Amino acid sequence: MSIVSAESDLLGSLIAGGTRPRPSAPAADTLWEQRFAQRTQRITASMIRELLKLTESPDIISFAGGLPAPDVFPIEEVRAATERVLTDWGTSALQYTTTEGYRPLRELLVRHMSRYGVKVGPENVLITSGSQQALDLIGKLLVNPGDRVLTEAPTYLGALQAFNAYQADYLSVPIDDDGMDLAALEVQLRGGPKFVYALPNFQNPAGVTMSLARRRKLVELTAAAGIPIVEDDPYGQLRYEGEHLPSLVSLDAEMHGCANGERTFTGNVLYLSTLSKTLAPGLRVAWVVAPEVVISKLVQIKQGADLHSSTFCQYVAYEVARGGFLDRHVRVIRRVYGERRNAMLAALDRYAPPGVRWTTPHGGLFLWATLPEGFDTVKLLDEAIAEKVAFVPGSAFYPTGGGERTMRLNFSYAAPDVIEEGIRRLCTVIERKTKP
Amino acid sequence: MSIVSAESDLLGSLIAGGTRPRPSAPAADTLWEQRFAQRTQRITASMIRELLKLTESPDIISFAGGLPAPDVFPIEEVRAATERVLTDWGTSALQYTTTEGYRPLRELLVRHMSRYGVKVGPENVLITSGSQQALDLIGKLLVNPGDRVLTEAPTYLGALQAFNAYQADYLSVPIDDDGMDLAALEVQLRGGPKFVYALPNFQNPAGVTMSLARRRKLVELTAAAGIPIVEDDPYGQLRYEGEHLPSLVSLDAEMHGCANGERTFTGNVLYLSTLSKTLAPGLRVAWVVAPEVVISKLVQIKQGADLHSSTFCQYVAYEVARGGFLDRHVRVIRRVYGERRNAMLAALDRYAPPGVRWTTPHGGLFLWATLPEGFDTVKLLDEAIAEKVAFVPGSAFYPTGGGERTMRLNFSYAAPDVIEEGIRRLCTVIERKTKP
Repeated sequence: MSIVSAESDLLGSLIAGGTRPRPSAPAADTLWEQRFAQRTQRITASMIRELLKLTESPDIISFAGGLPAPDVFPIEEVRAATERVLTDWGTSALQYTTTEGYRPLRELLVRHMSRYGVKVGPENVLITSGSQQALDLIGKLLVNPGDRVLTEAPTYLGALQAFNAYQADYLSVPIDDDGMDLAALEVQLRGGPKFVYALPNFQNPAGVTMSLARRRKLVELTAAAGIPIVEDDPYGQLRYEGEHLPSLVSLDAEMHGCANGERTFTGNVLYLSTLSKTLAPGLRVAWVVAPEVVISKLVQIKQGADLHSSTFCQYVAYEVARGGFLDRHVRVIRRVYGERRNAMLAALDRYAPPGVRWTTPHGGLFLWATLPEGFDTVKLLDEAIAEKVAFVPGSAFYPTGGGERTMRLNFSYAAPDVIEEGIRRLCTVIERKTKP
Repeated sequence: MSIVSAESDLLGSLIAGGTRPRPSAPAADTLWEQRFAQRTQRITASMIRELLKLTESPDIISFAGGLPAPDVFPIEEVRAATERVLTDWGTSALQYTTTEGYRPLRELLVRHMSRYGVKVGPENVLITSGSQQALDLIGKLLVNPGDRVLTEAPTYLGALQAFNAYQADYLSVPIDDDGMDLAALEVQLRGGPKFVYALPNFQNPAGVTMSLARRRKLVELTAAAGIPIVEDDPYGQLRYEGEHLPSLVSLDAEMHGCANGERTFTGNVLYLSTLSKTLAPGLRVAWVVAPEVVISKLVQIKQGADLHSSTFCQYVAYEVARGGFLDRHVRVIRRVYGERRNAMLAALDRYAPPGVRWTTPHGGLFLWATLPEGFDTVKLLDEAIAEKVAFVPGSAFYPTGGGERTMRLNFSYAAPDVIEEGIRRLCTVIERKTKP
């Protein structure tokens, strides 16, 4: 029996037996580039990822990447968790799951958020394949071609890549040691951005932290203007000095009267975080917290984007995390990365030529250096690579131009003595260029 | 030291100490739906996924899902592979990796493709998070708003979801037991589709297979028109009767003179396949094969979408597959699913009222039934659920309307005796509606 269509009998005789001879000369090549959609003109290779390829040579000390230190990966805990998952939940862990994500993992993240003053339910949490996917889904959700996104300058390059694919334009505000310049923000908010993209903690790339006063003010100004915030917080738990500051989403929830959990969670902030920095990036487990109306739409968008994130990775991540292991593990990471940050700061103090400035990150993975007037860090990179040291030129992180004499330096990946040697090499290159 | 901007000192005094009182009444709720991008009007909840929620009750026999049978998941092999991966490659398997995907896995897939007549290099392979992500990336690559995609009718719902997000329109051609109606195709090609989306093997949802003659003709017609094909082949290895037929990509490579590997791989076909049906869907490991110019752009797009697919899952999948295990395992799956297909066909022969027609799938997971004139399977579903059996109404799979009296029946998930009971219940419901 069949679902025969009307034309098929006629057609059957037409094509039966493949009697039509095939051409002997090769067919013409498809002009693929002419077929690409218009948005692809805005999608280009990430400077950082291309650079990473150049710096893969083992004799180069690379501060260019953003890699967590593999020596802190909890391999034994992942092994034990995987063993338990496959023994107790093998068939479920290998099967399709819901787009929202594995419910016990979402409930665990609800408890985690609650400890930081954000009272939500599992219906406010969506598991994503890394925070990068959250940025992509949010771009798809909010950005019409030509919509303006307001970012810090500099800002996270991956966010620009995600939003570029939806043909976003940008407004930007400078940052200082206390985060966003709010006078500039007030001006730019009048430009009608679709949303504000902010990294309040140990910002990638600059390593700076937004002060509590500015956090409150940012939340007030945006709520008053009816302009949402996308708060990207991958490093919040990796603090090496100072006290934890409340997230934008928690301040916003307070302002919306839903901080105590008595009123259904609502508000003006979409909050993103990840297990990439506290557990391991290779699992690709991150999450979004948002009002239910936003999560529902993000779920529909994610269905079309990848159905759901890896069930196996979600089960393993939950099994590693559920007994409180990550709280203990984060203390180890803080100690290791804190030492490396200190090593980089000490090496800069020791080797940096006059006129070089840098940030003092209270957490995270990155430090930001600014060279004297006249430097171009894109040009400098070639010389640095010749001296076997690498960084990322800062201009890549500016959505609306600038930053020619800045650079991003990662301190989480290399050991302290390697960091010192790398900074010594880098400062030698800078010094050589300083003296004519 | 800092990256202080000019305005910050002034600003510092303005915001210091948070002296501004916060409002005591809750702030107004953000009007999220008014902020959503225009494309989201085309993104709605998948009928199938919503239905699956209805059918989760354990006393319902559901033919609605598309789930592989969990009893064939190779849990012990995954356990052993994970153990080896964490012992030998722990730090790499938990770290970030390249967007292209884990190279040994891509090389393994190159060898796999080669056995099926497609000679490519690793530069022609991109690992994706399930084939659903490949469809999303291809939508982003090729579809401008209003571009027409030519599909089979019925076609895979997930592809429509992926392309809808890029505001695709559709042209469609009916299928019969030999696949696409090529006379209708020739007419529709004149409508200038951006590409043709085809599932030649055991099509989801209808279970039919495109004949060799039609495959050749489809490849010729599209190449002549300069219109690419996206070939989606999730089930190619799950054949229960008949001989393997060459893929569209292999026929196209032959026509482009690059089938023997002497000429760099090029051509008019993007080929998609997955380990979801031969290993396990929970790992989310799938791949695209395409000319290098296309892979390069897809890599850039994937960078912005999720950086890369789970490193851990890629290592585990490679470790399970590298010794040839999947070839042996596919024989087990074929036997189990083949029995279930036979059980469903036998039950239909036994219980179906006159006037009901169905396809005889040579592989895959689905069978397609067409009820007599006057039936509406959307309405029928309520009555079926009351009788504790579920299916997916066929109209969901038609991008340009139609299919009101059709339904998709999955035969891979339930055991043979359950299938028989489910078909008995379903046919009871149909029979009751047939007799006035």
